[in-house]
Amino acid sequence: MKDKTMQLPAVPTLDSEAITRAQRELDTKTKPPGSLGRLEHLAARYVAIRGREHLKLPVAEIVIMAADHGIAAASVSAYPQAVTEQMLLNFARGGAAINAIARATRARLTVVNVGVLGNNPEGVLDHRVRAGSRNLLEEEALTADEVERALEVGFTIAEQLAARGVSVVALGEMGIGNTTVASLLSAVFTGAPIDALVGRGTGLDDAALVRKRDVVTRALAKHLPERAQPLRVLAQVGGLEIIALAGLAIGAASRRIGVVLDGFIATSAALVAVQLSPNVKQYLFASHNSVEPGHRVILETLGLEPVLDLQLRLGEGTGAALALPLFEAGVRLFLEMATFASAGVSGRDD
Amino acid sequence: MKDKTMQLPAVPTLDSEAITRAQRELDTKTKPPGSLGRLEHLAARYVAIRGREHLKLPVAEIVIMAADHGIAAASVSAYPQAVTEQMLLNFARGGAAINAIARATRARLTVVNVGVLGNNPEGVLDHRVRAGSRNLLEEEALTADEVERALEVGFTIAEQLAARGVSVVALGEMGIGNTTVASLLSAVFTGAPIDALVGRGTGLDDAALVRKRDVVTRALAKHLPERAQPLRVLAQVGGLEIIALAGLAIGAASRRIGVVLDGFIATSAALVAVQLSPNVKQYLFASHNSVEPGHRVILETLGLEPVLDLQLRLGEGTGAALALPLFEAGVRLFLEMATFASAGVSGRDD
Repeated sequence: MKDKTMQLPAVPTLDSEAITRAQRELDTKTKPPGSLGRLEHLAARYVAIRGREHLKLPVAEIVIMAADHGIAAASVSAYPQAVTEQMLLNFARGGAAINAIARATRARLTVVNVGVLGNNPEGVLDHRVRAGSRNLLEEEALTADEVERALEVGFTIAEQLAARGVSVVALGEMGIGNTTVASLLSAVFTGAPIDALVGRGTGLDDAALVRKRDVVTRALAKHLPERAQPLRVLAQVGGLEIIALAGLAIGAASRRIGVVLDGFIATSAALVAVQLSPNVKQYLFASHNSVEPGHRVILETLGLEPVLDLQLRLGEGTGAALALPLFEAGVRLFLEMATFASAGVSGRDD
Repeated sequence: MKDKTMQLPAVPTLDSEAITRAQRELDTKTKPPGSLGRLEHLAARYVAIRGREHLKLPVAEIVIMAADHGIAAASVSAYPQAVTEQMLLNFARGGAAINAIARATRARLTVVNVGVLGNNPEGVLDHRVRAGSRNLLEEEALTADEVERALEVGFTIAEQLAARGVSVVALGEMGIGNTTVASLLSAVFTGAPIDALVGRGTGLDDAALVRKRDVVTRALAKHLPERAQPLRVLAQVGGLEIIALAGLAIGAASRRIGVVLDGFIATSAALVAVQLSPNVKQYLFASHNSVEPGHRVILETLGLEPVLDLQLRLGEGTGAALALPLFEAGVRLFLEMATFASAGVSGRDD
């Protein structure tokens, strides 16, 4: 059965020649060729995305999508479900880790409520599709219409980023229970075994980890999700913030905005985006390699190399935000470095 | 035989209780304990170094020490020796990779000439001890007096940093041939086998790599350097910029300035500093893990964890500079994050 279709923003194929040209330009600069390693890969691809001709310093923004999950009732998190709403308020007041890191990296932070239980605090964009997803062990988490509306939240935010001149967006998320949903999505879309994907999230003990693996196993048995029908899979397991992030990744790529992934959840959203729109992959940048085991599995599936080695497991976009200064550094290599010729520096002896 | 003694700036023992207290404070903040991984380790130690009570946003500076090496005559580099002087001019004009990265990370850059052949460009601090070290395959690279003067260059720069209110310094270097000297120093001070330490530097081919290993082997056989006599070892092999960086690390630590290491060369300088003054180790921070094989060996010897995963092999302080934004992020966690209590966020269920 073919998936129910939906109009997605068109994502242009990234010109691989433009990446090659950017890399060749870096090779004329006063440093041994390739000696800035992954920073060069990042910079060359970013420059190809943005276009070399009118290249400017990056304008970075962090977007957190937040929602609740019916599966939280199955005790898959070390924290109570109320924490999603409490953290939304904390983001709005500026007291969370991502607020501190956003200031440190001079990036604007936008927080979007896609379906958190309780009230929407002032300062948080209210795009609630519904008050939390349904419990996926009992029924489908979302309707097809809710999936579509959550994707559209992402498209809408991407439009707003483009209008503000944003050139690189860091994906963040908040939602108690969402590593379980991300585990399900990555099981479906990578085909990797459950034990390789399910981890301790925010800090589960051994017994709770066994319970979480059991939940994922039972959910897969109940819904029999099919990789070829990504929209159906999203209805079966959710979650709203992950779907909205997938929509944001598609919308951003369609506007030639670079997309920086955070940890396991945000990266699972990127995996979803690539299922829906394969060209999105060319616009994705990994930031770090989470201690959550499924993260590495997805990064390998997407062929992405992390640039930070911090053993993070927080989410909120913290890792993605910490990688943002690398984009400015990378662009400045193009705009400000001398060439061997212009600086009168001798080349290699050989 | 005991080493010739020399007056070094006193480096206070870092209070391990202060690190524990800082980590405990982080554990009260609104995030799962330890979920920011190595960023928390970095931040807790930095806060212990600077003192929690009057903690401010970090003031970062990058210092490049530059010098030439007589051993360059043995063709141990892919680039001609003249590149050291040419790059000094490039730094002064703002066209090198480190200039671009310094701007991206809002860090001041200071370039110090400790012994480059040729002229000293305007804008570079002239602290030349001598015009390049001697060829260590023929004679000792430096006299005892020259070693002492190079260390004192580092002490002097550390004083200037302290006077400017700098709280964290990134160590950078430039000197054609200096990976050979760093390989020798790390062979002596880690005891690791030569093959595990000698790499391709700025890009040697296979034949040149064999030649470089042979140079290191012959130099060790000629001088029979003894680990217990670090000042003697420094005279035997040099080099001026590495010794000045070691002096800078000692001087910075004595002033409670955090010291961020770059790649193999800068890290070998830190290894020297720790030989001369063991407490320095507590003030060191690794930035990245270079593709140069000896780098990992020294980092393991010093017990340091890199925070960037960029496969850099440039030097100039580029990796150290790219890690600087993590210090501001880390400090802002202390100054700006809410606690579970102040934000009304629920703790763990268990």
